[in-house]
Amino acid sequence: MKAQIVIIGSGNVGTHLARVLYSKGHNILQVFSRTLSKAEELAKKTEAEAIDDLSKIISSAELYIIAVHDDAIKTVSDQLNIKGLVTHTSGSVSTKVLDKHKRYGSFYPLQTFRKEKKSDWKKIPFCLDANKKKDLDFLEKVARSINDNVYFINSENRKKLHLSAVIVNNFVNHLIGVAKNLCDENDVPFEVLIPLLNETVKKATKNNPFDVQTGPAIREDKDTIKNHLQLLDEQLYRDLYKMISRSIAQTNFGRETKI
Amino acid sequence: MKAQIVIIGSGNVGTHLARVLYSKGHNILQVFSRTLSKAEELAKKTEAEAIDDLSKIISSAELYIIAVHDDAIKTVSDQLNIKGLVTHTSGSVSTKVLDKHKRYGSFYPLQTFRKEKKSDWKKIPFCLDANKKKDLDFLEKVARSINDNVYFINSENRKKLHLSAVIVNNFVNHLIGVAKNLCDENDVPFEVLIPLLNETVKKATKNNPFDVQTGPAIREDKDTIKNHLQLLDEQLYRDLYKMISRSIAQTNFGRETKI
Repeated sequence: MKAQIVIIGSGNVGTHLARVLYSKGHNILQVFSRTLSKAEELAKKTEAEAIDDLSKIISSAELYIIAVHDDAIKTVSDQLNIKGLVTHTSGSVSTKVLDKHKRYGSFYPLQTFRKEKKSDWKKIPFCLDANKKKDLDFLEKVARSINDNVYFINSENRKKLHLSAVIVNNFVNHLIGVAKNLCDENDVPFEVLIPLLNETVKKATKNNPFDVQTGPAIREDKDTIKNHLQLLDEQLYRDLYKMISRSIAQTNFGRETKI
Repeated sequence: MKAQIVIIGSGNVGTHLARVLYSKGHNILQVFSRTLSKAEELAKKTEAEAIDDLSKIISSAELYIIAVHDDAIKTVSDQLNIKGLVTHTSGSVSTKVLDKHKRYGSFYPLQTFRKEKKSDWKKIPFCLDANKKKDLDFLEKVARSINDNVYFINSENRKKLHLSAVIVNNFVNHLIGVAKNLCDENDVPFEVLIPLLNETVKKATKNNPFDVQTGPAIREDKDTIKNHLQLLDEQLYRDLYKMISRSIAQTNFGRETKI
């Protein structure tokens, strides 16, 4: 199938989506950005028309994908006068903000994008939703033209998924940063830890992580915890270490523990 | 080279080490466990003698590897009357606890082991230390018979490395558990998050994680943070979410932020 698509937004998500949809044979009719040069750059690569004025968006496309900042989605949507299916790509915004339109939904690729880096679209899951069954079928076809990791997730569950995504992406990244920082400050090679980190993720995704939890917190090994706290120079990271240790212990023992 | 080795301890680390050293052609002379049947099980697989009495440990081996719980290392070491090189496998205990012996050191494989699962020894880094240069050379040869990820790390730095290992292993595992728990409770398929998690780790290990940090905390996006906190049923995980978000923001802005 070949869908007629308008992409609204030329940031990371808009850029990556427009390019992969174009590469799969879909027609990218228009690309919108508030900055014309950005729209033009992407439009050139996708044989689309570049526009910087929402009123110029044509009404004949089948699918409109709004890929702008969360807090701008409603404003953008409200300015569109079209009949086609209007979707956004946000994990945390309800599709209800699009309900000015008769047909609306979610086209949410669950991945962290960087504009300058190619994305591995074979693995990126699509979380889809629509207020009409036939539109959901249509979104499924568009998503499946890219890969088969397709999930139907309503707005309420998508918000929980997004929260989980923040935990496994933003929070895990921060912890890796804290560990790297500690290594760098002490001339300990961080690379030593990479096999362990990879094994951790492998193990945690093949089991229930709570069942395979190890470490001083779950052993209530107060000496090691005390030693670790002394090694951390910053109060912030001592607080962080204590909080996560408390969370590990309390999750395991089902009661508060003094850490 | 073919080393004459005694393994003291038949837990996860002792078992995995004995078996890989045996497979690389070293002579495992004895295997010790307080539980004779455990020593026998491992001894059978490594053509070693099984013992459950520390006084029976022979004095003619070149290398003694103590792989017991951290708090038992000193007690075990103090009971040994031998001339060879005595090492332990702990990340957090100083080699000083072995200083009853003239020659002592560290033979620390940085990985999380499970007894029932084969370990990928090609990737597991060895962190070595010894109080005599020629013993360090000897340990290096033994380690290199397994793989070339060999590092020389003194006790002080090894403790910092161990703390970093707790962060990237135990703490990251816990966060993945919290995310999975949230998905399971809401019938959201956790598998949707696995590609994101893998990409997160890839990105964090190829960059400085603090430089590629994204998410609501670093954007000071209070609405999203508020929404996320409302989605978490347990006070424990709300506290955890707030603490990590505060740590992300403060690391980035270099000042306290209200989250």
